[in-house]
Amino acid sequence: MSSPLRLGIAGLGTVGIGVVKIVQKHAEMLARRSGREVAITAVSARDQMKNRDADLSSYRWETDAMAVATAEDVDVYVELIGGDNGIAKDSIEAALRAGKDVVTANKALLAVHGQDLAVLAEGLGRVIRFEAAVAGGIPVIKAVTESLAGNDVTRVMGVMNGTCNYILTRMESAGLPYEAVFEEARQLGYLEADPQLDVGGIDASHKLAILSSIAFGTQVDFDAVEIEGIERVSIDDIRRASDLGYRIKLLGVAQMTARGLEQRMSPCLVPADSPLGQLVGGTNMVVVEGDSVGQIVLRGAGAGEGPTASAVMSDIVEVARGVRMPVFGQPAASLTAAKPARTAVPAAYYLRLELQDKPGALAKIATVLGDAGISIDRMRQYGQHSDSSVPVLVVTHKTTPEAIDYAIETLPGTGVLVSDPVELRIEEV
Amino acid sequence: MSSPLRLGIAGLGTVGIGVVKIVQKHAEMLARRSGREVAITAVSARDQMKNRDADLSSYRWETDAMAVATAEDVDVYVELIGGDNGIAKDSIEAALRAGKDVVTANKALLAVHGQDLAVLAEGLGRVIRFEAAVAGGIPVIKAVTESLAGNDVTRVMGVMNGTCNYILTRMESAGLPYEAVFEEARQLGYLEADPQLDVGGIDASHKLAILSSIAFGTQVDFDAVEIEGIERVSIDDIRRASDLGYRIKLLGVAQMTARGLEQRMSPCLVPADSPLGQLVGGTNMVVVEGDSVGQIVLRGAGAGEGPTASAVMSDIVEVARGVRMPVFGQPAASLTAAKPARTAVPAAYYLRLELQDKPGALAKIATVLGDAGISIDRMRQYGQHSDSSVPVLVVTHKTTPEAIDYAIETLPGTGVLVSDPVELRIEEV
Repeated sequence: MSSPLRLGIAGLGTVGIGVVKIVQKHAEMLARRSGREVAITAVSARDQMKNRDADLSSYRWETDAMAVATAEDVDVYVELIGGDNGIAKDSIEAALRAGKDVVTANKALLAVHGQDLAVLAEGLGRVIRFEAAVAGGIPVIKAVTESLAGNDVTRVMGVMNGTCNYILTRMESAGLPYEAVFEEARQLGYLEADPQLDVGGIDASHKLAILSSIAFGTQVDFDAVEIEGIERVSIDDIRRASDLGYRIKLLGVAQMTARGLEQRMSPCLVPADSPLGQLVGGTNMVVVEGDSVGQIVLRGAGAGEGPTASAVMSDIVEVARGVRMPVFGQPAASLTAAKPARTAVPAAYYLRLELQDKPGALAKIATVLGDAGISIDRMRQYGQHSDSSVPVLVVTHKTTPEAIDYAIETLPGTGVLVSDPVELRIEEV
Repeated sequence: MSSPLRLGIAGLGTVGIGVVKIVQKHAEMLARRSGREVAITAVSARDQMKNRDADLSSYRWETDAMAVATAEDVDVYVELIGGDNGIAKDSIEAALRAGKDVVTANKALLAVHGQDLAVLAEGLGRVIRFEAAVAGGIPVIKAVTESLAGNDVTRVMGVMNGTCNYILTRMESAGLPYEAVFEEARQLGYLEADPQLDVGGIDASHKLAILSSIAFGTQVDFDAVEIEGIERVSIDDIRRASDLGYRIKLLGVAQMTARGLEQRMSPCLVPADSPLGQLVGGTNMVVVEGDSVGQIVLRGAGAGEGPTASAVMSDIVEVARGVRMPVFGQPAASLTAAKPARTAVPAAYYLRLELQDKPGALAKIATVLGDAGISIDRMRQYGQHSDSSVPVLVVTHKTTPEAIDYAIETLPGTGVLVSDPVELRIEEV
């Protein structure tokens, strides 16, 4: 058996401690599977005094992540600090320069600086692995870069923020408005310190940008993701969608088109009986489509100590086994700078309109949709909502986002709406 | 870039031709992802004259798989002949001895001779990869051996024979009896030449035995799988199960218990709204549970040219990338000979009984179940079925297979049954 693989771990939050626990609990199993012992040498975190759920006494404590990253007796630097800049980035760069391989769960950093880090690592002959950065315990990075290596990937999509899915699911099951469930989630500790990372769709978009890169061989481009969070999803829309056989999910979709790479993160309707529609609570799901494999669906816990630590460990074992791969599955220099494209792939859309209850209102709406070139698949008019308004739901046939934008801009001019129209894309899954 | 990886492909059926097509169509992409060119040097199949859906003119044709396996100009022997013995086995052994790595889709061979082949390969420093052997395009071998390397796997289960799932799904949707749908499937070409491989559960059990080995670090032991096919699943049971909120699936389950390794393949009830319950048609699903990762669900096409060739290609790219791993994820010498255990893990059971329509019949049944220590969760008595019989469904609380066996043996002695009792396990998913 080879010499031990020596880990230096920076960041001892939930995931870091989860990794420590696995290394301690499964030492013999890891050695058998890796072909060598996996040992922790040094650790660091902001607060040494904090009470942690693991015995760290046999590891050297460093007050500085930098010291862990560059320590003589560290082979793999495990970065679990987080953040798209600062010490996380600096320490990873230092580790690479000091000849260490890197394992990280840092989606924000990779989404923003992934290309530069890949160039640096590959120039130095080091690897960076990041299975835990996307969808927690679900092995989606490996699936796309390795299992689908023989495929031209045509589309990647997923529900990749458990907190948002929890909120949307709970709104539906409890019949509660967004604000109430948001507050519940906050009290349950489900939200990031900056909740916009979750409900604003940013965290999920970091993950989507990374997935796009490995799926399409493009330079990771987080800024090109069209992002919309779940804040404007109303309980009304959740109920109406459900009536029509749909569920609303914060869905990330990336697909390569003739016009460029579309990357969007937005609340979408998906069929209630589809795998994505069935996904409740904090679970994540990623769907990958390739020209040979067809559609692959991967489902599991997207966060939490065990699942995320499991993903980090899988990367560590790969390094221990001697697996060497370019960071994004092909040499960084060969990743293309994809032209970002605004969403143009046609889809059906859901429209909710609150109309004045007077003759001719519906005709005016229908005229605008017709002028926009939008044809109607289904329409439902409900009983009067309040003194003066009537809710009308429209499910369109497939149409372009441009046509929908035109309709949404034009509809208020009819003078028959009592509030702004709501539109949601119905993603084909 | 390194020298090309040269493939020799034996067996040019659907999968073999699928591999050829990918190599031809995606040459540049494969080179980028692999770090080297992937080239086909030699091919062989039974019938050179057969019209095939690919241009093979630039490859050397060998009349004998042996010649491909041992050719000087072959680095990887791709065995797609099939069969648990004969030329498939001989040629793989010859290839290993000639210093070739091996990629195969041959589940039968690995299920029966996997341990010996692993010992041989590892002794010679060669790798054997077999992603395509289990669940077609679903990357389950990689998920278990690599992504879950930090987990103590607690259970693996799956629907891994698309033909059986097609038959069961079609019986339900069309309301047709088994025999009629079996005949349909035969005419559609869905069945193996020996249909027992499919409907008898043997093919799926080959896959389960392989999964067990990599999940639990045990020597593959196909003979220890308790196998029951789908032949005795009646349209009556499918309907009744559906009434109760379940679907019937041919489900393989492997779990390590204190008594030994349980491996069973049998028609089971699963909740209709679970991922496994939702699976229709020829799609496959594998569920893996680990102590850290929790539950991972993988879904995709389990057969067919594209998906299976995709899996073969992923193995080829891994070899091209220089990935070297023990055949079953840890050295063959360290795989333990697991004690096979008959199913003892408790479960709820579904019982269908046809009773004589006379006073006291139900009491006699209830007495037998009580004597067996079985308590009843739900019971439904239906209207009279024919002149003399009344169908009664029982869903038990969790009980042991032994208790169920006792009840099934004892129930006929009550003299109130008009036909043999039917029992099906309700697997917790």
